[in-house]
Amino acid sequence: MSPAPVRIGLIGCGRIGQVHALSIVATPGAELAGVVDAVPTAAEATAARFGSTVYGTPEELITSDQVDAVIIASPTPTHVDLIDACIDADKPVLCEKPIDLDIERVESLRPKATAASIPIVLGFNRRFDPHFAELHRRVQAGEIGTLEQLSIVSRDPAPAPIEYLASSGGIFRDMTIHDFDMARNFVPDIVSVSACGVAQFSDEIKSIDDYDSVIVTMTSSSGQQVVVTNSRHAAYGYDQRAEAFGSEGLLEVSNVTDTLVRRWGADQVEAREPYQNSFLERYAVAYQLELVAFLHAVRGEPSTSPTFHDGWAALVLADAAARSAKERRVIDVDLSV
Amino acid sequence: MSPAPVRIGLIGCGRIGQVHALSIVATPGAELAGVVDAVPTAAEATAARFGSTVYGTPEELITSDQVDAVIIASPTPTHVDLIDACIDADKPVLCEKPIDLDIERVESLRPKATAASIPIVLGFNRRFDPHFAELHRRVQAGEIGTLEQLSIVSRDPAPAPIEYLASSGGIFRDMTIHDFDMARNFVPDIVSVSACGVAQFSDEIKSIDDYDSVIVTMTSSSGQQVVVTNSRHAAYGYDQRAEAFGSEGLLEVSNVTDTLVRRWGADQVEAREPYQNSFLERYAVAYQLELVAFLHAVRGEPSTSPTFHDGWAALVLADAAARSAKERRVIDVDLSV
Amino acid sequence: MSPAPVRIGLIGCGRIGQVHALSIVATPGAELAGVVDAVPTAAEATAARFGSTVYGTPEELITSDQVDAVIIASPTPTHVDLIDACIDADKPVLCEKPIDLDIERVESLRPKATAASIPIVLGFNRRFDPHFAELHRRVQAGEIGTLEQLSIVSRDPAPAPIEYLASSGGIFRDMTIHDFDMARNFVPDIVSVSACGVAQFSDEIKSIDDYDSVIVTMTSSSGQQVVVTNSRHAAYGYDQRAEAFGSEGLLEVSNVTDTLVRRWGADQVEAREPYQNSFLERYAVAYQLELVAFLHAVRGEPSTSPTFHDGWAALVLADAAARSAKERRVIDVDLSV
Amino acid sequence: MSPAPVRIGLIGCGRIGQVHALSIVATPGAELAGVVDAVPTAAEATAARFGSTVYGTPEELITSDQVDAVIIASPTPTHVDLIDACIDADKPVLCEKPIDLDIERVESLRPKATAASIPIVLGFNRRFDPHFAELHRRVQAGEIGTLEQLSIVSRDPAPAPIEYLASSGGIFRDMTIHDFDMARNFVPDIVSVSACGVAQFSDEIKSIDDYDSVIVTMTSSSGQQVVVTNSRHAAYGYDQRAEAFGSEGLLEVSNVTDTLVRRWGADQVEAREPYQNSFLERYAVAYQLELVAFLHAVRGEPSTSPTFHDGWAALVLADAAARSAKERRVIDVDLSV
Repeated sequence: MSPAPVRIGLIGCGRIGQVHALSIVATPGAELAGVVDAVPTAAEATAARFGSTVYGTPEELITSDQVDAVIIASPTPTHVDLIDACIDADKPVLCEKPIDLDIERVESLRPKATAASIPIVLGFNRRFDPHFAELHRRVQAGEIGTLEQLSIVSRDPAPAPIEYLASSGGIFRDMTIHDFDMARNFVPDIVSVSACGVAQFSDEIKSIDDYDSVIVTMTSSSGQQVVVTNSRHAAYGYDQRAEAFGSEGLLEVSNVTDTLVRRWGADQVEAREPYQNSFLERYAVAYQLELVAFLHAVRGEPSTSPTFHDGWAALVLADAAARSAKERRVIDVDLSV
Repeated sequence: MSPAPVRIGLIGCGRIGQVHALSIVATPGAELAGVVDAVPTAAEATAARFGSTVYGTPEELITSDQVDAVIIASPTPTHVDLIDACIDADKPVLCEKPIDLDIERVESLRPKATAASIPIVLGFNRRFDPHFAELHRRVQAGEIGTLEQLSIVSRDPAPAPIEYLASSGGIFRDMTIHDFDMARNFVPDIVSVSACGVAQFSDEIKSIDDYDSVIVTMTSSSGQQVVVTNSRHAAYGYDQRAEAFGSEGLLEVSNVTDTLVRRWGADQVEAREPYQNSFLERYAVAYQLELVAFLHAVRGEPSTSPTFHDGWAALVLADAAARSAKERRVIDVDLSV
Repeated sequence: MSPAPVRIGLIGCGRIGQVHALSIVATPGAELAGVVDAVPTAAEATAARFGSTVYGTPEELITSDQVDAVIIASPTPTHVDLIDACIDADKPVLCEKPIDLDIERVESLRPKATAASIPIVLGFNRRFDPHFAELHRRVQAGEIGTLEQLSIVSRDPAPAPIEYLASSGGIFRDMTIHDFDMARNFVPDIVSVSACGVAQFSDEIKSIDDYDSVIVTMTSSSGQQVVVTNSRHAAYGYDQRAEAFGSEGLLEVSNVTDTLVRRWGADQVEAREPYQNSFLERYAVAYQLELVAFLHAVRGEPSTSPTFHDGWAALVLADAAARSAKERRVIDVDLSV
Repeated sequence: MSPAPVRIGLIGCGRIGQVHALSIVATPGAELAGVVDAVPTAAEATAARFGSTVYGTPEELITSDQVDAVIIASPTPTHVDLIDACIDADKPVLCEKPIDLDIERVESLRPKATAASIPIVLGFNRRFDPHFAELHRRVQAGEIGTLEQLSIVSRDPAPAPIEYLASSGGIFRDMTIHDFDMARNFVPDIVSVSACGVAQFSDEIKSIDDYDSVIVTMTSSSGQQVVVTNSRHAAYGYDQRAEAFGSEGLLEVSNVTDTLVRRWGADQVEAREPYQNSFLERYAVAYQLELVAFLHAVRGEPSTSPTFHDGWAALVLADAAARSAKERRVIDVDLSV
């Protein structure tokens, strides 16, 4: 017999909230038990679309005995308090990244989060992408011997609106944060960070004192190297690649195309259509598998979900990168504490 | 408001029946209203698994007022009579290919089927594969000018059990039938068929007087050429490709891999994992989209579903191929009647 | 110490003659000892460009004691008599394909050619292409087990001038002839030929009663299948591919690009530049290696050069294909006699 | 009429010297006029093999009126003095990289070299590789808009013998030096260098206080970013790639394989053979084209040959990288002086 479905309360009904709501209704074993949003009409629309109950406040939702677990998809500044409330209410929680833009706030919750008995899961969806997950599995299986150099390329199709970017915490905390988590998924014990950031194509981004292009180099305690290349734009679509080089070979994940059709013409040959323009499409399956892993965690089963520690570590690396880019030197980090 | 769901009755609960049952429960707008199978326990297990009602006979299911439309996934010899019953009951029907192994039986139903007002849809799922559908869309859009040569490669991972093959009607009616429909999807007006069949690797297949490897060449009324290459085995997995060559270029669909991971090692480089070993995996999405198109047809909306005529035409081509291989000459066909 | 260079006399100073002249001067161990052409100024220009002696007639060149071996690159109708003269003069000879367009004339020389003690080599340069040669080597080495199906695609960038085509002997003797030899290089004992020819895009070609597009299917005595797809045009350049399918896998050679540069843009991704437009470029290295193999044959060393028998066999297949396309039936051939 | 051949004197008859000798005899317009080596028997063997005159000392060769131009392929410590002697003798010179391991020695010759009227060409052969040259041409032609991020991957098949490495000047001056020049070929005005070096797989390399794996990040005055990834080993062969990302797209050069044969088997599909194991094979054509460009320079024709300035700049970058890796901070450089 199937176990009783996990009744999930969703906090935040914006773009990512919609993605989670859809995953919940599409996933056997999950139920969208309640929704809440600072904008009541957003919550009502979501409840109507997917069939759910609207709560008046996040606290009411978290403490409701109709809610078994919580997904936090509200704005970043609310995350720390909401996770805190979930711990108090003993409710497993999946929180969108980042935990907070301010490492001090994260540190303040950290002892309590670490001691908590409930799963606190961070929304690093990319770990669940079937392609990157398979890369990870095969590296762990020893196919390339010892991993020596990991290269991650991540380029957005186009910059987000400047208003968003201005409050995003900067490229390292907003965009590279995914790559920091991906790096740690392969090389957990990073000990140093060196970052180079420039604003070379966007005057808007320059005007808010942020970078549009960054390259980050990291090393682990055993000398493994990771290099991340980011850009806030890419003419050919969302560029998401990884390459793991080891003592016995190399494994690579290149970009996903909607179909395998290739074209030969008078101008160019063997050509594919440009890549998808959105992380929602590229990582649609990853969002679903992220939810499945969360359900495992909620049920006390083995789960690969990233934890509060992973969320904290990614932010530590982002902070170190920001400092490195500014001070133009290598920054040491200690992720083992 | 969503339209009322289409209540579908499923005849046949074997391997393909299971695929359809799963598609029905996973597709919004469809409902598994009833199941029936010559083996009652098979019907009961399916009803229990997906939640449905067991009917005693196909006729009861077809005529039930709880059933809006029918999917026929029972053995081939039953197809003609069941389609006939659906016409009488005015129930839209999706029938697995082939309509029958005997063209005479198909011809006997043809006038009635042609005159019928309900949709009679054939289960040529490959038309709905996203890759081949996109190939078709781009050829139709004129990307390669006039289509001149179409090449289809289709190789199974391994022969089916000899008992199955012995009653399959031969490779042309059992396996190439899909390629005949694919050919007609691009080049509807085929006028000649030339086939070459050999049994070169399987003594079992030779012993039932069938071929394990065939090459079929066809031409259309305007001189377009189609070549189909089949084998009953392929060491590297299910091989499903198509290449459309036209006056202005070429479009190709190569094989699908589970993930995009590629490997570089001391022995080989740029290598992918072997292909999926089963049409169920390879065409999982195609089966779902086939159902969606059937729902459109049932609701009287525009639909790309293949018709009884398509089922008949594919069988005419299969018969012509069998005759060509035996008589060692080109066989003319007339699909326009 | 190096052996004395082989002094080669070149008959015919047209386009292919120039290619041979260039190969000779660029190849250690070969010397361009003499040239002759029906157009004396052509011979003189070649002699001046590469440094050589002009002969008055082919016979003078063939019988000269300054000439060790002969390359025949004159028009096809001259080939049989010139080979005959080389046999009489005991001079090893490399003759461009085809031996003749008329199989009767070839047959008339065949007994003498077969009995001759000198190497009579046919200019099937494609055997020496490094890519196809490696494909051959790996198939012979058993990498794919038993070869079962061989697919050759060969498309020209654009039709030759209609004047040339009108006297070319037809597409099978002029263009497919290369593919017949390639087929026999992998599958020597072909026993049946079935060909389908159409004139679908060129009214000019139709007007001379030739085909612009052909598909040829062949079988060997053990049931191996070969399929050749030809077109007289290809928008994306010279299309030269082969695919060998066997019991344990598949080996493929796709098209050569000048460089490995690939492009990602807003319109298309992973795109290469179109292929080379000429066999002279595509097979430049093959022509050189063809000469090297000829030098080995001249010196009595082991050589992979195709023989008079190969030239005869290719023509037999071309004749069979022409007849099959016309009579619309399979034609049996016997290449073992 | 062809111009008189350039009579070239070759200093150094080791492995690279042999490559140059072979290029000279194979290149129309060049003549191997003389050779010299510290080991007389090496010079004699080279003279015998290629047909040339042995000189007693480099000075005699440089000042000989039988020598028009000089190629220096002797050990690095001799380069500065020999270039100096060529300037004094007014002889165009092509010198293998690096000019010297000690930037002070290079600086001491720099004013004189800059003022010299003869071409002083540095042996950065990789600029002449057809693939990288085409990449460069297309980037210059604006195909990707403004170049923003350049990524170079360069991995050797296996470390050179430790004795060689110990006197090589370290990985930045010995191996990355090629990548520094490649970087400058695309982005000449580099202003900062940040390097991360580790010895993670070779205890031998660690024992000589060198790195076996490095990642170098550079920026140009306009903010362009370059990242170089090096390793002293690669299980799959010599790994030589570049990727140029710009405002309008991306251009890539991946690795060269001997042939285009790909293999499908039960274990892996679409697999190529491992890459060549040696720069001599990979860059064989590049060495020839490097010589052709040098001949152009000697004759006063337009030439793309890298200059003394390029050799100096690459060494400045190597020094900056070594310092950056040690001091763990960004090092500013000024290549405009």
